[in-house]
Amino acid sequence: MIVIDGMSDRILRDYGKTPLEMANIPNLDRMAKEGLCGQLDVLGVGRRAGSDTAHLAILGYDPHKVYTGRGPLEVAGTGIKLKPGDVSLRCNYATVDDNFNLISRTAGQISESEGTMEFEKILNEIKLPVEYEFRNSLSYRCVLHLRGIGLSGDVCDAEPKREGEALNKIKPTKEGREAEKTSEILNKFIEESNRVLKNHPINLKRIKEGKFPANVIISRGAGRTPELENFYDKWKMKGAVVAGIGLIKGLGFMTGMDVINVPTATGYIDSDFMAKGRAAIKALNDHDFVLLHVEGTDEPSHDRDVKGKITALERVDEMIGYVMDNVSDTLIVVLADHTTSTDLGDHTADPTPLVLWGGDSVPDEVSKLTEKEMYKGGLHRIAGRDLMPLILDQTNRAKKFGA
Amino acid sequence: MIVIDGMSDRILRDYGKTPLEMANIPNLDRMAKEGLCGQLDVLGVGRRAGSDTAHLAILGYDPHKVYTGRGPLEVAGTGIKLKPGDVSLRCNYATVDDNFNLISRTAGQISESEGTMEFEKILNEIKLPVEYEFRNSLSYRCVLHLRGIGLSGDVCDAEPKREGEALNKIKPTKEGREAEKTSEILNKFIEESNRVLKNHPINLKRIKEGKFPANVIISRGAGRTPELENFYDKWKMKGAVVAGIGLIKGLGFMTGMDVINVPTATGYIDSDFMAKGRAAIKALNDHDFVLLHVEGTDEPSHDRDVKGKITALERVDEMIGYVMDNVSDTLIVVLADHTTSTDLGDHTADPTPLVLWGGDSVPDEVSKLTEKEMYKGGLHRIAGRDLMPLILDQTNRAKKFGA
Repeated sequence: MIVIDGMSDRILRDYGKTPLEMANIPNLDRMAKEGLCGQLDVLGVGRRAGSDTAHLAILGYDPHKVYTGRGPLEVAGTGIKLKPGDVSLRCNYATVDDNFNLISRTAGQISESEGTMEFEKILNEIKLPVEYEFRNSLSYRCVLHLRGIGLSGDVCDAEPKREGEALNKIKPTKEGREAEKTSEILNKFIEESNRVLKNHPINLKRIKEGKFPANVIISRGAGRTPELENFYDKWKMKGAVVAGIGLIKGLGFMTGMDVINVPTATGYIDSDFMAKGRAAIKALNDHDFVLLHVEGTDEPSHDRDVKGKITALERVDEMIGYVMDNVSDTLIVVLADHTTSTDLGDHTADPTPLVLWGGDSVPDEVSKLTEKEMYKGGLHRIAGRDLMPLILDQTNRAKKFGA
Repeated sequence: MIVIDGMSDRILRDYGKTPLEMANIPNLDRMAKEGLCGQLDVLGVGRRAGSDTAHLAILGYDPHKVYTGRGPLEVAGTGIKLKPGDVSLRCNYATVDDNFNLISRTAGQISESEGTMEFEKILNEIKLPVEYEFRNSLSYRCVLHLRGIGLSGDVCDAEPKREGEALNKIKPTKEGREAEKTSEILNKFIEESNRVLKNHPINLKRIKEGKFPANVIISRGAGRTPELENFYDKWKMKGAVVAGIGLIKGLGFMTGMDVINVPTATGYIDSDFMAKGRAAIKALNDHDFVLLHVEGTDEPSHDRDVKGKITALERVDEMIGYVMDNVSDTLIVVLADHTTSTDLGDHTADPTPLVLWGGDSVPDEVSKLTEKEMYKGGLHRIAGRDLMPLILDQTNRAKKFGA
């Protein structure tokens, strides 16, 4: 299962076309032509999904039942073991001015090679009235994990809607002493992060070089540890996850799949897609199911970067060709977790393309991988929750009900 | 409603086509061309159905609520009246070696004309610690019905997965004294069946003639009597069933439909399809709804017999032509209960073709009856539970909700 994050789009106002229609993606086109295609309503018609809820749905977990927030999945993705009652948050290294107005939500896409390992150390030395762990994830991404009792995931995000706006003060989203306590802890952490980071030599040097300093940690997606059924128990397939970003790795860890690390994956257009393709092919040797996630297509969509999205699609397409050339007797499923409108810079609920390639079902007349061609797909329009049962049947693993 | 059992298929690896694509079926093609078509997910996307659960779903019963096993429907199909608490099993005349390894699961397709009437008699004389009835059904098919209290349907099948394997010892599938008792009774019946059959003169003669002796009874599909709402009460249509095999007849009996016997139906490629077509046309005189089931297409699929499946499709097609020529003001619905892959020899969850012919709804651009053409069908892809409401509306019987 190859999830190309935010692959599909709407018609771009300046181009009259979608990025998939403009990109040169011969391998994805061939896959769509030879395979069986359709549209997937990941959460349901008109329901906008995050990457977290979308991946839960795609893997057959009901996000309405199990989702507690993005934080826990992100934290699990860094290798931290989550216990019931813990509260986890996704964070960013970011840049604020002296009045805590957000200048860059990624501190200029700061990465570990630029010194965030040192930041991680001092951010674990802040005094908080709770046991906690702060850990770097990929690039500017990081996580905060609060342990113990009396905590709540019902608190708002520090990250405002847009750059230029002031950070949100953390407040409870539901009444309760636990949410108040958790808000106080988080506000303290954010203030202290600014105090220990703003005059750090690495940041002073960045400012001198015209780069954004990573002078604050902003949080979002707070949530308590969710309960997720083991993937093998659920589908009777030994699963592996090949992913760069913590969210997807975390989902792998939390569902008991093997999480395969690809050190050269960046989560951006420049990611080492081929290395991920190779890792996935290798994983197929001793797994029944491999989830290969690529993030590099979604990031430029959020940045409203049309050319970047096209470049990412074309680089992913090379990897798709490699995968197609190196499998036998394998069903390949290609989809997006959600559509991302590059004009809007955000996810939409438009159904995502879905391609099954390598099975024995009758192919349809789809000739290439675009949003429009999917309208003719033989699978028509199916729901996210039906995808895993469909895969089980297509690989002749489905149990028969009745005789 | 004409159900062509296991009609649809996947792409055959040796042919690059499906049996429907290879068969010469001008009448079915004309029906698809003139009618309104689509795909039916009988139990849901990716959910593999047996013929029993499939027919329940098609007739508007929720198999997840009412299905207890294939046995009761098969037993009802022989005319036995089922009482609450009884346990029913579908059986086969079969051939085993001295170590109870299965040689032929049908005793070489043995039929009543070859002497199973005599077997039926002696199989009712076995001493069991429960009241029971053994009855022949169609060809090698037969049933066992246990009456009384303290019985359970939660026991495994005697029939192993494949010929060549040893029969399964009957064991409870759920813990409980009732399932243990039922297992003991069934093991005794199976052993005794071998004792009374193996040296029977008919079997000794079969062996001499190089035929498989019917030297054991193997059971499967154990289940307690289900509760099924009366078909007329449910849909306000007087219903009739024209079927050869016991399963479908039993469903007719248990839902209070008139079950029309066609003595020349065999359940195989050689069945008298035309006699069934005539019986259905006749039944339309005094019924609102006729279910015409043909089994002959599914059996060769299970036997991985491509040519046999094509022959069966072509013979069914002649009958379809007869039916089309002899109805007026009648909606004809053609579908499969499930797809059967002739390469796999088993059911798959691929949606089945669905054709509505003779109604006034706007036809689509489907030009023939194949799996691929159905992708363009105007009905798109609908669920099994929606079929009866659709039929009610197409025949102008649907109740309006609202004003």
